[in-house]
Amino acid sequence: MSNMEIAVTRKVAGEFLGSALLTIVVVGSGIAAQQLSTDIGLQLLENTLATVFGLAVLITVLGPLSGAHFNPMVSFAAVVERTLPLRDALCYLPAQVAGCVLGAVTANVMYAKAAISFSTHNRVSGPHFLSEALATAGLIFVIIALQRVDRGAWSAAIVASYIGAAYYCTSSTSFANPAITVGRMMSDSFAGIAPGSVLFFIAAQILGGVLGLVAVNLLWPRTNEIR
Amino acid sequence: MSNMEIAVTRKVAGEFLGSALLTIVVVGSGIAAQQLSTDIGLQLLENTLATVFGLAVLITVLGPLSGAHFNPMVSFAAVVERTLPLRDALCYLPAQVAGCVLGAVTANVMYAKAAISFSTHNRVSGPHFLSEALATAGLIFVIIALQRVDRGAWSAAIVASYIGAAYYCTSSTSFANPAITVGRMMSDSFAGIAPGSVLFFIAAQILGGVLGLVAVNLLWPRTNEIR
Amino acid sequence: MSNMEIAVTRKVAGEFLGSALLTIVVVGSGIAAQQLSTDIGLQLLENTLATVFGLAVLITVLGPLSGAHFNPMVSFAAVVERTLPLRDALCYLPAQVAGCVLGAVTANVMYAKAAISFSTHNRVSGPHFLSEALATAGLIFVIIALQRVDRGAWSAAIVASYIGAAYYCTSSTSFANPAITVGRMMSDSFAGIAPGSVLFFIAAQILGGVLGLVAVNLLWPRTNEIR
Amino acid sequence: MSNMEIAVTRKVAGEFLGSALLTIVVVGSGIAAQQLSTDIGLQLLENTLATVFGLAVLITVLGPLSGAHFNPMVSFAAVVERTLPLRDALCYLPAQVAGCVLGAVTANVMYAKAAISFSTHNRVSGPHFLSEALATAGLIFVIIALQRVDRGAWSAAIVASYIGAAYYCTSSTSFANPAITVGRMMSDSFAGIAPGSVLFFIAAQILGGVLGLVAVNLLWPRTNEIR
Repeated sequence: MSNMEIAVTRKVAGEFLGSALLTIVVVGSGIAAQQLSTDIGLQLLENTLATVFGLAVLITVLGPLSGAHFNPMVSFAAVVERTLPLRDALCYLPAQVAGCVLGAVTANVMYAKAAISFSTHNRVSGPHFLSEALATAGLIFVIIALQRVDRGAWSAAIVASYIGAAYYCTSSTSFANPAITVGRMMSDSFAGIAPGSVLFFIAAQILGGVLGLVAVNLLWPRTNEIR
Repeated sequence: MSNMEIAVTRKVAGEFLGSALLTIVVVGSGIAAQQLSTDIGLQLLENTLATVFGLAVLITVLGPLSGAHFNPMVSFAAVVERTLPLRDALCYLPAQVAGCVLGAVTANVMYAKAAISFSTHNRVSGPHFLSEALATAGLIFVIIALQRVDRGAWSAAIVASYIGAAYYCTSSTSFANPAITVGRMMSDSFAGIAPGSVLFFIAAQILGGVLGLVAVNLLWPRTNEIR
Repeated sequence: MSNMEIAVTRKVAGEFLGSALLTIVVVGSGIAAQQLSTDIGLQLLENTLATVFGLAVLITVLGPLSGAHFNPMVSFAAVVERTLPLRDALCYLPAQVAGCVLGAVTANVMYAKAAISFSTHNRVSGPHFLSEALATAGLIFVIIALQRVDRGAWSAAIVASYIGAAYYCTSSTSFANPAITVGRMMSDSFAGIAPGSVLFFIAAQILGGVLGLVAVNLLWPRTNEIR
Repeated sequence: MSNMEIAVTRKVAGEFLGSALLTIVVVGSGIAAQQLSTDIGLQLLENTLATVFGLAVLITVLGPLSGAHFNPMVSFAAVVERTLPLRDALCYLPAQVAGCVLGAVTANVMYAKAAISFSTHNRVSGPHFLSEALATAGLIFVIIALQRVDRGAWSAAIVASYIGAAYYCTSSTSFANPAITVGRMMSDSFAGIAPGSVLFFIAAQILGGVLGLVAVNLLWPRTNEIR
């Protein structure tokens, strides 16, 4: 990451914009899928492909500016890995949450729904906790591992593909991001999450993020012959 | 864009051909989807994937010749960004519109429908206006941003992916292109738009295109340390 | 194409093997789709994605050996473009046809059907003729254009994407290949073609191939400043 | 493969982790598909796309470490090709099998099923044997051919695409991997295989792997002018 010297205001603006656009893609395609398809698996397929496409675009264009995190756990991992100053991460966090909320509201308006319509989709269960922890662990593992094996240039395609796989193979559909979890609380759709499940998901995501960091550092120790 | 010195007639021919082929893909796959599938979400999925594949091909092969705009808003943005002379853009415009019309007619004939069959699909609504404005803003933002971050070489995959995400997450299914909006007026199919909605869509697209240009120049000012 | 000096027997073996594997993918996924799905659009989607994936693989691994044509029209165009000696093309032709027939038979056996079961899928109609001519014209145009704009290295992804778009936007589902048209005659499935429609399709494909060659040479004349 | 000098314990850990994650993707998305969709072809499509995305990610991040085999037949082929010491392959084998079993168990728990629930999906038949032999032959052929044509850097996308095509065009849905065959025995889902069919599948896979090695060495002999 050679973007250490970019003004933090521009980087924060990039995180805000990217988080908003990502949430528009996730929530908007979730609403569209629910309105247009009857089979739930097909709804998830439509939601997944839109998210994969959108994430690849956003990481490609905003990666060189802000790192294209859109996710406090990714920013936290970057601080631990010393590729992002803690000061920047503290500015990223509110921008990411605000962007995700704005994105959910925009998607609602774009589909003629109430701007803020809280989800009633309860997602508290043991299997969901395990799913979110694993999904976040895998996301952090993949992002850091790409840097360790000198394939950071592939991150747009690989992180998007990771989400494409994780949406389908976890029972929670892999939110894996505390900011978008808050945003999706405000969408009464297929892609929503009830307010009462949000802290539960965020706890799983924090645990998973730490696990992912531990795993990647076990497999590629800092002072290793191959980075 | 190093194609400034190519004869304008060849560039215009490239825009005409590319616009026609893009519209054949969009309208043809729209007709096929409507004939072959019952679930509307699945129809949109088929239409989306065909468009993503086709756009990636056309931008790859025609990009080095004409810039592969196929879209007056993209050409307009290129003029503002000084990567296309205004004189060329004025020649591109009629070629893009004529290409899109020819493409729609060809798709109709290929599916044994009346060559010109006007759509009755009314698309005038506030949410559709917001959708088209956002979709076009995003398209222009992504195309210019790719140049600012020196990733113009990825434009085929990224612009195609952008459309793949935008088709699904906007309630208007993201026409985001005044020329193809005119062409799709002539297809009485899933992918069509009623003549009475065309100017409404184009107004939203122009507004969106201007917004996209403003946003990309705010985030990457011309005289910036990182382009 | 720097494979001019490879022994022709190895190149012909590559064409035979690749044609067989391509046909296994096309016909096998066609049979699977028909057996597993009820919606015809969904069947075509499954058939399309399998073909896109398979074609990308085969062009990547066999391209450096034989050019990965698997298609007499592509070999014919290569002769005209002087990237393949006529003598080699004459050896490719029977290998391509034999490979496609073997592939169809293998797919039949793999699905416990009669090894040779002629299709009853009649495909003779004006719109189908137009579709096949356009699909083949586009295929030849794209393959040659990739060389003209120095993007031959992208051919695996781009040719696969082209077929992905063409399957969906043409009413004939884009065979665009005389050899596989013969092979698909021997599959009584979704992907089959009745023997009585084969010559009709091949005529359209030959006409389309010539049109594609003319178009690409009009847009990129041989003695042009940009190749 | 320049990873000959990496400590074998780290490489084995990479194979164990990758095999577990791959099986979570395959089995988890299989359970999700079966729970969410009714059309079996659509279930397979969801399962296929998740696997393609997941495999591309895992090969990208773990390839530089262990080679990203996750499959004893691939490791065996690497030994024959002299890119992996026999001693390492003997350590890979139990790690791959244990990883696949752990992955299947994790997927079961993530979906609130019994941790170990043996499949009742009987898959013994002649066409299935042919399918598995061909699928494994093709996999080994593609992996070695990528090295022969100096495109090993593309292996993540190409091997993932290969599996995407093979899932759909074989009647066995292409396990093509003895380790994951053992793991999938422990999933009573769409993606499972009855214990009584496991040895039958493994026999077909071993035969296919040998055939793939023979084919690739016939087409690209070791002492050839083009590697």
